[in-house]
Amino acid sequence: MSGAPGRSLRPDWTALRAAARDALRFAYAPYSGYAVGAAALADDGRLLTGANVENSAYGVTLCAECSLVSALAMSGGGRLVAFTCSDADGRVIMACGRCRQLLWEHGGADLLVDTPRGVLTMDQVLPQAFGPEDLARVNGGRAAAGPGTAAPAARDLGSEAHGEEPS
Amino acid sequence: MSGAPGRSLRPDWTALRAAARDALRFAYAPYSGYAVGAAALADDGRLLTGANVENSAYGVTLCAECSLVSALAMSGGGRLVAFTCSDADGRVIMACGRCRQLLWEHGGADLLVDTPRGVLTMDQVLPQAFGPEDLARVNGGRAAAGPGTAAPAARDLGSEAHGEEPS
Amino acid sequence: MSGAPGRSLRPDWTALRAAARDALRFAYAPYSGYAVGAAALADDGRLLTGANVENSAYGVTLCAECSLVSALAMSGGGRLVAFTCSDADGRVIMACGRCRQLLWEHGGADLLVDTPRGVLTMDQVLPQAFGPEDLARVNGGRAAAGPGTAAPAARDLGSEAHGEEPS
Amino acid sequence: MSGAPGRSLRPDWTALRAAARDALRFAYAPYSGYAVGAAALADDGRLLTGANVENSAYGVTLCAECSLVSALAMSGGGRLVAFTCSDADGRVIMACGRCRQLLWEHGGADLLVDTPRGVLTMDQVLPQAFGPEDLARVNGGRAAAGPGTAAPAARDLGSEAHGEEPS
Repeated sequence: MSGAPGRSLRPDWTALRAAARDALRFAYAPYSGYAVGAAALADDGRLLTGANVENSAYGVTLCAECSLVSALAMSGGGRLVAFTCSDADGRVIMACGRCRQLLWEHGGADLLVDTPRGVLTMDQVLPQAFGPEDLARVNGGRAAAGPGTAAPAARDLGSEAHGEEPS
Repeated sequence: MSGAPGRSLRPDWTALRAAARDALRFAYAPYSGYAVGAAALADDGRLLTGANVENSAYGVTLCAECSLVSALAMSGGGRLVAFTCSDADGRVIMACGRCRQLLWEHGGADLLVDTPRGVLTMDQVLPQAFGPEDLARVNGGRAAAGPGTAAPAARDLGSEAHGEEPS
Repeated sequence: MSGAPGRSLRPDWTALRAAARDALRFAYAPYSGYAVGAAALADDGRLLTGANVENSAYGVTLCAECSLVSALAMSGGGRLVAFTCSDADGRVIMACGRCRQLLWEHGGADLLVDTPRGVLTMDQVLPQAFGPEDLARVNGGRAAAGPGTAAPAARDLGSEAHGEEPS
Repeated sequence: MSGAPGRSLRPDWTALRAAARDALRFAYAPYSGYAVGAAALADDGRLLTGANVENSAYGVTLCAECSLVSALAMSGGGRLVAFTCSDADGRVIMACGRCRQLLWEHGGADLLVDTPRGVLTMDQVLPQAFGPEDLARVNGGRAAAGPGTAAPAARDLGSEAHGEEPS
């Protein structure tokens, strides 16, 4: 159970929020003028951060969560256990829908999410999420390795193993 | 002039390709089974890497270039001067169209791109690219700060300055 | 008040679900093998449908909701009041996070969403959604012109047909 | 050969450009203020149009080509043979990289693309495109079932209407 150790971590929300605000300085937001910083705790205690990176072709804009999830992967993967993000005024803001989907893949239903109405679980901010199980139900598994299995397998075995389900 | 120093850097393509192959181990590709690693040189000599991060909702998949461009921003921004990416067999592959757009924003026409047919410029692999100038032509600047102005401005001044054009 | 007439429409869920299942035949899903069909009712009684359109570059995949929202715009805009989507087995499935964000923009908090656990509101499936108000709060309006101040060509339709804000 | 009949069609560029300009009125572009209209000819002579549909979460913005490609699928699929798009001033503009990737999937190397420098082929505006062959090379087919082996519901249409492969 990849998430097990992380679930017992006690997130330091004050530190996480400060990290999200600090990440704002890396935002590249010339089009919206709306900088976003994000921070998360992984289940091994790693701190991850991200900031938004916009594009003149608006549709390829990367949100702060894209950056954060990429940082998670590039630093060894694992599961997210607590997440927050901040606007330029230091207010806690909500991830857009796309980014809730990203976070879901790497944190699942139990990921703790900082919101203007307090800390909630991912399952509360993206209820009945679409996930690998949906793909598997129709395909019998062709397209769906699943995050809890494939991610660790891919990381242990490197380039040979990507996406080869362990069983 | 953000790009100037970088243009004189001589990319070590052998090292860049090795870095891209090495980044493959961080790929999260359980759905396609198609891991991608990417590496680039920034104009201050920094090495940046990335790997793809897929999602059960295919449309929110992050390519290796998304990861790399996020890493560029999160390590201080600047311009890309040379780029390569690799599949799991170690072959040089081409960025998809979306990612050429991402690279364009952060490297422009002169960015050197490793391809199966040799090193080309970004302008050769995304000719007549859509960019900030297009937005500016219609809007008189509302939506278009442009990468050469806003990015450095945002970086120097941090969270106060994001997207506020200097003049 | 753009939404007002629609809110009093009584969605015929049986017909909507049938339309979503019928739309499945237009899906282009060679990569995942996972076809999705979607259907919605607009506030003027129009029926809209969509199906997913995948791409070898997974990250540019268009979900069925992208298709449906495009159809909404291309047939004159307006607001969505009821939505459902279906997998190839005819089961009601949930929109991914990205698509909840798309639906939010065109239906808002009150949009009725068909789910495996019954009909819910958009506010229940994307609580505390990120929206134009967030952009406006930081920018004082630069990036958040908001529905209704669109490009010249779009202006005629804009404020009546698309707007989020009632006034 | 799905593309064969289309390849012999002679696109009426004047009519296509007029259709793209006409489609501008459907654009929903409150954030950038940059409306885009697109038009294309399919290989059975069908005219397809699209307009951009933005979102307060910039990264989920749908370009005019997303809309057009969705319309292609929803009207029966097939291959694109000629494409143009227009800004609000009626100027021919280039598709962003993401949208070249979309067009590639549905038109391939020979799709004719209207550009400020004249009509070019898709292969000229997205040279060495990433495509299904890349996926197939590494996977031996798992992730690259390719057009024609789509989901059950899509299969009927799939291989005839959508296919990339010439045989």
